[in-house]
Amino acid sequence: MSLSQRNPEDRPIAVLLAPDILALLLESPQDIPGETEEVHPADLADVAELLPEEHVAAFLQALAPERAADLLEYLDEDLRVRLIEAMSPESAAVLISRMTPDDRADTLDEIDEEHAEEIVSELSEEARTETEHLLSFPADSAGGLMTTEHVSVPADTTVEAALESVRVAARSGRREATYAVYATDERGRLVGVLSLRELLAAVPGTTVRDVAWTEVITVGPMADREEVVRVTSNYDLVAVPVVSESGHLMGVVTVDDVIDVIQEEQTEDVQKLGGMEALDEPYMQIGLFSMIRKRAGWLSILLVSEMLTTVAMQQFEGEIKKVAALALFIPLVMSSGGNSGSQATSLVTRAMALREVSVADWWRVALRELPAGLALGSILGAIGMTRIYIWQSFGMWNYGEHWRLIAMTVGIALVGIVTFGSLAGSMLPFLLKRVGFDPASASAPLVATLVDVTGLSIYFIVALIVLKGTLL
Amino acid sequence: MSLSQRNPEDRPIAVLLAPDILALLLESPQDIPGETEEVHPADLADVAELLPEEHVAAFLQALAPERAADLLEYLDEDLRVRLIEAMSPESAAVLISRMTPDDRADTLDEIDEEHAEEIVSELSEEARTETEHLLSFPADSAGGLMTTEHVSVPADTTVEAALESVRVAARSGRREATYAVYATDERGRLVGVLSLRELLAAVPGTTVRDVAWTEVITVGPMADREEVVRVTSNYDLVAVPVVSESGHLMGVVTVDDVIDVIQEEQTEDVQKLGGMEALDEPYMQIGLFSMIRKRAGWLSILLVSEMLTTVAMQQFEGEIKKVAALALFIPLVMSSGGNSGSQATSLVTRAMALREVSVADWWRVALRELPAGLALGSILGAIGMTRIYIWQSFGMWNYGEHWRLIAMTVGIALVGIVTFGSLAGSMLPFLLKRVGFDPASASAPLVATLVDVTGLSIYFIVALIVLKGTLL
Repeated sequence: MSLSQRNPEDRPIAVLLAPDILALLLESPQDIPGETEEVHPADLADVAELLPEEHVAAFLQALAPERAADLLEYLDEDLRVRLIEAMSPESAAVLISRMTPDDRADTLDEIDEEHAEEIVSELSEEARTETEHLLSFPADSAGGLMTTEHVSVPADTTVEAALESVRVAARSGRREATYAVYATDERGRLVGVLSLRELLAAVPGTTVRDVAWTEVITVGPMADREEVVRVTSNYDLVAVPVVSESGHLMGVVTVDDVIDVIQEEQTEDVQKLGGMEALDEPYMQIGLFSMIRKRAGWLSILLVSEMLTTVAMQQFEGEIKKVAALALFIPLVMSSGGNSGSQATSLVTRAMALREVSVADWWRVALRELPAGLALGSILGAIGMTRIYIWQSFGMWNYGEHWRLIAMTVGIALVGIVTFGSLAGSMLPFLLKRVGFDPASASAPLVATLVDVTGLSIYFIVALIVLKGTLL
Repeated sequence: MSLSQRNPEDRPIAVLLAPDILALLLESPQDIPGETEEVHPADLADVAELLPEEHVAAFLQALAPERAADLLEYLDEDLRVRLIEAMSPESAAVLISRMTPDDRADTLDEIDEEHAEEIVSELSEEARTETEHLLSFPADSAGGLMTTEHVSVPADTTVEAALESVRVAARSGRREATYAVYATDERGRLVGVLSLRELLAAVPGTTVRDVAWTEVITVGPMADREEVVRVTSNYDLVAVPVVSESGHLMGVVTVDDVIDVIQEEQTEDVQKLGGMEALDEPYMQIGLFSMIRKRAGWLSILLVSEMLTTVAMQQFEGEIKKVAALALFIPLVMSSGGNSGSQATSLVTRAMALREVSVADWWRVALRELPAGLALGSILGAIGMTRIYIWQSFGMWNYGEHWRLIAMTVGIALVGIVTFGSLAGSMLPFLLKRVGFDPASASAPLVATLVDVTGLSIYFIVALIVLKGTLL
């Protein structure tokens, strides 16, 4: 199974491997460890996902337990849960005990509670305590993300001895969080950090205290996962130490988990921006009923809010009856308000997520959106009026004797509505944050709905003023 | 300036430091290096952003050139450009030559071309060649992201000698990309990779070839930055080697740059989803005119497309004149189509970005959206009909003698429109991708606009059928 240079543009490696592995599985499973020795566990997991499901357990069994545990860490969550729940607690414990502590806790968190307890009771005393400790933190906190594996040494250790500690840890199979060495004081509190590179560069004979950075960037165990992301990204870290209130190092969050968090958070933000609850599961895997439930809530709220447009329209039913041409442009002017609001909202929620703007900046944003809205509204108003002039002049439609006044109504209304849309769309995330909601809930549909009602009123009020004495 | 335990919940460290540093700058600038020795360069950069701008150049000069170069890497782009363009080419070259090669190239790429050339001519021969080489790759390719700093050794080097190479590199001040050691064959081609941890764990006397992973995960220099993100995230890497077609290691992309790319891509996706061109610059920094230009394009396109609603309405002007009550529900039914479309689009574009669905999956998605749309439409239809029943029954409004038929029209139309919206919203990203556009351009406003025209037609056609013989 020789694999030439890996080329991600070509077919995924797993697609190439899966048929060979299936053949081996049926004929000589004992050859599988040797043949897959150099394959990345992420690719092995992809192979497992491609195999017929009845063969996956046999594939795991054919691998060495360490490799099978690695594979499980990269496997699709649903498949992993099904596989582990189908195993005896003893076999499951063999694999799960070989996972990194954070993935072990995450996996046990996913499966049926009764199953999980049986598996935990099969773990060694040390692994059990560690796992129960990790499971005690909320999944979206720094404590829930961290692994307990790390290397720490007393600050007065020499750099040679510290390097030897890293070596021992690496040989013992601890796989994560050996990017840095943490220095502790006599009471075990974190007082310094040193990257492996800096440790290697240090002059022999010096102590860790001499060369370590004393201003360690840390987070508390209950810090929100967004805070972990911010710290990692701001300080370019590959591991963030998690420190208790008393200053003791409890574990580290590694950058690969931070990347997963960034991608999950982004998925949630996009789904909220689209006007629904976050799905929590991949689109193709979530049950149809769960998905409908997560979408129906916001759709219903939006529908009920949008009913205000009917109320607004009812106030102007007389005007619509008199000048039916006014009704023709309702969708046009309304949607422009929603569109400009959607732009402003997505700009502001994203800038808030990146901490480019804070709640205190609301007036600065308003001072940008006001002129932007006026300019955009004027552009759209000009286009809208031109459209009516062209249709009327070329005889494509007859808007009646006073068509110039109708064109003026549409033009002026667009300026007002787009300005209002930009302002409302940009201010909504601030308002939501101010009253304690997630500003990302300011979805494009929500803004559009809010702007629709006001937009209609603006349109009809402009019409009343412009058409007074002629059509109305 | 002793700083107690760093707590990100408290005021940012830079806010605490800035006044002290300003005082030092005015009284004894020679003390600044000592007082800021332990401060992370990201925090120093924040301090520089807080200082009055006329003092920033003096602050940089007070620091050792290495620290000033580190600070510059973390500084706000606009400020960095202004600072460097105000320096003499010689002083700028002193700082820029101390940056990591990738940041050096990025910085030179930002500033005025003439200035950049003057600075490059002041660099050492080696740094000049390296910088010009990096600048030759597109900024959004793996080549444009990579740094040339890395440690590679011939595959038959012993692990002790390899460790010594890392040590030499670390001492020489190469700061990036020392997470792994790369093994090359006699022709200099990349044949293996070994993390620093694995190198430390290796049995003394073995060669790098014996312990290295031979299936190295790599990208080509012209690989898109999204491909770099995918590989990093999929294989949990901290550094991705960039390899030429001939198999030579050209550089590595480090995980901190990958995180920056992920966040930039997300900003672009959110802005596109909001219905505009991506801004390329932070919201509070982009010029008002540039922002208006990036927003006006899509707004105008959407307005012109939305004009089709006017055309659609014109076909039904006679019906509106006869039954003005029909006009009252236009915003309601139209917006529900747009909202369900917006949900479907954001779900599908995000699933595509994460590679959970590919273009070939379009019919699987359609088979989910069809029942989801029917269910959601039925829920909304029931709510809509109830609304009319309540208003009419409690005498809050009179929709006329045939109000039951109008309620039925609204209910049936909502089922049709929401189903159509869900289908259209989910299929649009596939269609865009199929014809070569970015599926992320399928914005909520674009979907809403497309669905509006069809939604109106569905509404009036349902009205014609239901009201035929009574009101119409």
